[in-house]
Amino acid sequence: MAMAELIPSSSSSLYTKTTSLQYSSQLSNVLSPRLSNQRRVCLKPRNSTIVCSVTSKEVQAPVSVKTEDPKKKPECYGVFCLTYDLKAEEETKSWKKLINIAVSGAAGMISNHLLFKLASGEVFGPDQPIALKLLGSERSLQALEGVAMELEDSLFPLLREVSIGIDPYEVFQDVEWALLIGAKPRGPGMERAGLLDINGQIFAEQGKALNAVASRNVKVMVVGNPCNTNALICLKNAPDIPAKNFHALTRLDENRAKCQLALKAGVFYDKVSNVTIWGNHSTTQVPDFLNAKIDGLPVKEVIKDTKWLEEEFTQKVQTRGGVLIKKWGRSSAASTAVSIVDAIRSLVTPTPEGDWFSTGVYTAGNPYGIAEDIVFSMPCRSKGDGDYELVKDVIFDDYLWNRIKKTEAELLAEKKCVAHLTGEGIAVCDLPGDTMLPGEM
Amino acid sequence: MAMAELIPSSSSSLYTKTTSLQYSSQLSNVLSPRLSNQRRVCLKPRNSTIVCSVTSKEVQAPVSVKTEDPKKKPECYGVFCLTYDLKAEEETKSWKKLINIAVSGAAGMISNHLLFKLASGEVFGPDQPIALKLLGSERSLQALEGVAMELEDSLFPLLREVSIGIDPYEVFQDVEWALLIGAKPRGPGMERAGLLDINGQIFAEQGKALNAVASRNVKVMVVGNPCNTNALICLKNAPDIPAKNFHALTRLDENRAKCQLALKAGVFYDKVSNVTIWGNHSTTQVPDFLNAKIDGLPVKEVIKDTKWLEEEFTQKVQTRGGVLIKKWGRSSAASTAVSIVDAIRSLVTPTPEGDWFSTGVYTAGNPYGIAEDIVFSMPCRSKGDGDYELVKDVIFDDYLWNRIKKTEAELLAEKKCVAHLTGEGIAVCDLPGDTMLPGEM
Repeated sequence: MAMAELIPSSSSSLYTKTTSLQYSSQLSNVLSPRLSNQRRVCLKPRNSTIVCSVTSKEVQAPVSVKTEDPKKKPECYGVFCLTYDLKAEEETKSWKKLINIAVSGAAGMISNHLLFKLASGEVFGPDQPIALKLLGSERSLQALEGVAMELEDSLFPLLREVSIGIDPYEVFQDVEWALLIGAKPRGPGMERAGLLDINGQIFAEQGKALNAVASRNVKVMVVGNPCNTNALICLKNAPDIPAKNFHALTRLDENRAKCQLALKAGVFYDKVSNVTIWGNHSTTQVPDFLNAKIDGLPVKEVIKDTKWLEEEFTQKVQTRGGVLIKKWGRSSAASTAVSIVDAIRSLVTPTPEGDWFSTGVYTAGNPYGIAEDIVFSMPCRSKGDGDYELVKDVIFDDYLWNRIKKTEAELLAEKKCVAHLTGEGIAVCDLPGDTMLPGEM
Repeated sequence: MAMAELIPSSSSSLYTKTTSLQYSSQLSNVLSPRLSNQRRVCLKPRNSTIVCSVTSKEVQAPVSVKTEDPKKKPECYGVFCLTYDLKAEEETKSWKKLINIAVSGAAGMISNHLLFKLASGEVFGPDQPIALKLLGSERSLQALEGVAMELEDSLFPLLREVSIGIDPYEVFQDVEWALLIGAKPRGPGMERAGLLDINGQIFAEQGKALNAVASRNVKVMVVGNPCNTNALICLKNAPDIPAKNFHALTRLDENRAKCQLALKAGVFYDKVSNVTIWGNHSTTQVPDFLNAKIDGLPVKEVIKDTKWLEEEFTQKVQTRGGVLIKKWGRSSAASTAVSIVDAIRSLVTPTPEGDWFSTGVYTAGNPYGIAEDIVFSMPCRSKGDGDYELVKDVIFDDYLWNRIKKTEAELLAEKKCVAHLTGEGIAVCDLPGDTMLPGEM
């Protein structure tokens, strides 16, 4: 356990790394000004004879984007700046109303897979036109244009708008979904506390922006790590949006757990159901084999090797990302994107009878006795309306519960460590040293 | 025009680069032995208690892969080595019979997008189970395992088998589709003739392998550049497979052309139809605006700017890849994968009434008067059975025909330059110096 003392000793190497965590939340707000105050970028449409006009809410008569407050929305891109009558298409094609989807870290590799899946219709369905709002950094702005160009060249019929920007207050305007993928990687020698602070500031800022400009029922999926606590920071900074709408992605862990159980049982992965990932997306995560089923039977009735279940299974799930990095030379962008698609589809399509899915959600009023006021991965079901309910009929034994308490303790410690970002006072960091999943950052 | 002389001068810097092209086809065969003779790689399934058993043709009782000739099929991977009863699933799920799809260059970025699209069902449909056979090189074998791991973790229900290998004679066994993406990039200072030779040898080898072991009606999509002539080499080395089954990918060019016409006309890209890319996938390609339509009207009636159509439009299509590389820092993997999906879907779904698509195909018996016995991109329609027919009702004017003759001349020159690989004697290279599309290699 690496421990940042409440009153750091000047002789500790941790000192310089952790003092920055000891700001009050008020001071922190002063120190992390809005990105938009630093620089505002306006991209010129490449064909200047074409004007931007379509808003997300309704189709208007063509107007030039120049007549609008340029600070209010990000810039459209290329062919997506064109004026068209979507309402007419909604009628002729029986399309649903356009939805706005923001993706942060949009120039990164996970997004490079995800954006094309969103645009192809495989996530929200073949009758759901979408607008993609790409959030990047100043450094990635050219790359964002490259992504937008590739989206243009892909001719996806359902992709009606693409805009790019670096200010979350612009990019998150009216979004119904915010997929927050961008996060800073842990630098050499950086403690987990330092990572929590750096990324926490990003997610505090994005929470504020969502609170200010997003749809009042926006669904937020936090992928950037450490995702549970980033999601907590984000929702605390967005008090006007239901806390229930924020998710931390643990679906890749669930998918990996299903695959490993299938391998061990010698069945195809579609036979494995009811797998819960409990807790934090870190090495303390708890892949639950007690409630999981194979071909409708409890896993323990199919896999008799208790030692494997208790000792090897969890480790196999946790180390998967690291193994993959060694083999493939980069982190698992494609399967992460697939798991984001799975996570969204689980919320917009009804959960199959008797099954459930895992997602990190706010613990207010959970039936399991898990600490309140953290973001904790738990088993959920959805009617397909974007909302979810927690599954009640799960069982616990000592093994499972003890491990749940351990991941809960970690999340409570992380929460104390980001108190300056959640408006809850002075940060105190007492964290396990290295519970980041290998290959995840 | 860079010209490789028939009898090279020893003072020419071209000399050393082009002498290797002057082998007879017989000698060339001696000099390019089968990869499989050099080294054969056997991957151990990670869980040794699980055996490989499902063949592509029918489901058999479980047998160990060890009892089969290990040279006859590539190794299965992880969960995809499991025994299962697909026939039962075909009955309960109304699934079609499993098809085998080979992808070369499987560890590369284009494949990293394409494989997940194939596995998700978006290419062949939600009732078509597939087996993916990944062809890589010795160097990329670890990366191939990483790709297979990510495919495992994605839990695609339709993906029933994944195998990986480096010997095309193993990987192409019984494949119904071969998507040939892998090719060597042009090294510094390499002439196009050198590139044709290096890649031509790969595609000659793969053609021989397809001829020996693939399904008798395999459809072959050549993506690796120079793709037209690679496709010609491949089909010449596979005399037992109909030449009509070989395609060179020009769909990304078609998609880009549609997008540029849409931008210029100020309409959404779904209004643009009947766009043909004629000829070679190189800078001599001819995006046809004479036959193309916007909202059902001839392009020339909608875009009155003839100077733009004749001078800027083609250049915009051709330079797109280069612009993208500058912005994005890498080549257009995602949109290339989308265009491969489009190209395949155009063959397995009926072409919409009145429209067509472009693909580079063998010119035997074409109605346009284009030289026979080359691979030339032309307008096609399909009934959705994997086959196609050429569109007859296209018109030509002097501008279009002159440009078609130029790209035809280039392809005839490329053909002479690879005569040693097509069994047609001594290679003679007289090629334009630099007609590679920027950013495509």
